[in-house]
Amino acid sequence: MIIIGEKLNGAIPSVKSAIESKDENFIREKAIAQAEAGANFIDVCAGTAPDVELRTLNWMIDIVQEAVETPLCIDSPDPEILKAVFPRCNKPGLVNSMSGEGNKMEVLLPLFKEADPKWELVIMTCDNQGIPNTVEKKLELTKMMVEESKKYGLTPDRIHIDPCIMALSTDNLSFLNFKREIEAIREVYPEIHITSGLSNISFGMPVRKLMNQNFMTLSMFVGMDSAVLDPLSRDLMGAIYATEALMGNDKLCRKYSNAYRKGKIGPIKK
Amino acid sequence: MIIIGEKLNGAIPSVKSAIESKDENFIREKAIAQAEAGANFIDVCAGTAPDVELRTLNWMIDIVQEAVETPLCIDSPDPEILKAVFPRCNKPGLVNSMSGEGNKMEVLLPLFKEADPKWELVIMTCDNQGIPNTVEKKLELTKMMVEESKKYGLTPDRIHIDPCIMALSTDNLSFLNFKREIEAIREVYPEIHITSGLSNISFGMPVRKLMNQNFMTLSMFVGMDSAVLDPLSRDLMGAIYATEALMGNDKLCRKYSNAYRKGKIGPIKK
Repeated sequence: MIIIGEKLNGAIPSVKSAIESKDENFIREKAIAQAEAGANFIDVCAGTAPDVELRTLNWMIDIVQEAVETPLCIDSPDPEILKAVFPRCNKPGLVNSMSGEGNKMEVLLPLFKEADPKWELVIMTCDNQGIPNTVEKKLELTKMMVEESKKYGLTPDRIHIDPCIMALSTDNLSFLNFKREIEAIREVYPEIHITSGLSNISFGMPVRKLMNQNFMTLSMFVGMDSAVLDPLSRDLMGAIYATEALMGNDKLCRKYSNAYRKGKIGPIKK
Repeated sequence: MIIIGEKLNGAIPSVKSAIESKDENFIREKAIAQAEAGANFIDVCAGTAPDVELRTLNWMIDIVQEAVETPLCIDSPDPEILKAVFPRCNKPGLVNSMSGEGNKMEVLLPLFKEADPKWELVIMTCDNQGIPNTVEKKLELTKMMVEESKKYGLTPDRIHIDPCIMALSTDNLSFLNFKREIEAIREVYPEIHITSGLSNISFGMPVRKLMNQNFMTLSMFVGMDSAVLDPLSRDLMGAIYATEALMGNDKLCRKYSNAYRKGKIGPIKK
């Protein structure tokens, strides 16, 4: 399971405050905590007004890179911002995200042409028409974008497809469709990653954490191998270790037992 | 999901004490709490020395039947005890359990011949040779016992097969084999119930609740529709409601939302 740590996003009020007050320590500590908890990428998203987004993102990137070895996931809705911060990263990371919308493909794909072949990319299955409402159309969009990516040297094993799951409250079959989408995409690209934010599924529902956690467990089982989540949540990390073991991916349950011994999962030891 | 409430088992120290001190109130309150939490059956297991088991079980049955409308799950390793308490139940319930061991089939199946056709039976897939170690042998045992049950009027829709899952710590493929067993059994008997205790999977591991809960979520997804569990655990009940919704079984997520409104799931409201 590839964990993209979500705690450095300007949409979170405490992060917003830290950005406004230039609180480097806050940013540093969140980066270190996520890295120690097992994040594979640290997402950085400024979430500020466009005129200060670039400056803010550069500031965050510098702090995180100095604090941890974990690669960055540079995150912006604006491809020009992603292009601008790309060279500032001192090691290959993850670009979050491309889609068929606007000029995203034209701006982002050329970045990969000359870049370190370890750079990876999140692709969302939507375009100017929005999010397709059938598995077939999502697969079609995926194919179009993956094939285009290949022209820039970006192989499917470096791509994380986000099938843009619908909220369960608006579509009761949302998770079952997600499963079908994963199966359809993996049939064409067996080595591709499938990712998702965890919280879209529970939009409009109470006890969202409960729904998100069970969604994650089931999604891992049906083939999701990457997710944007809070690695500081002991419940989520516990569910990941337990699910990997149940799926037969943890020989003698050693990783699970070690995570417990290191205090990463289970009740906090006094 | 059919919930068999497990909180009235003499193997639990507080229940053992209540049995020893003849604390009727304790038994009554645990029955009421489980019924209110949504148990479909209240398991009663004396867990005492054989010479007092019958007396104890009768005492428990009387208290529970007076306290709640929820049917009983009469639970003993000794088929003669189950036969003796069977007529004491004032409504049809669940017999827990039969297997191919000893004289269980000969003693238990005739009970169903003349009984109310709402009585149900848990069948464990083991015999005098122990628990088979292949899917094929478990299926064979299942078929033998289900076909024998039919002769006594007990149809598959009234049978809960417990495939006797192995601990994940001793068999890394335990859950994946459970999935295969469910599929194999359902192919022959589509209408049969599949049940399990939740705690066998986590034997020998730390943070057993975490493992049990994720096992339950995944097992529901692969077809387990009955389980012996603690309905007073908000985490487990929350996982059940969330998983049913994710599986598309909860139109407009109404059951999930109602469970929250009634305070059954989520953080306890102050």
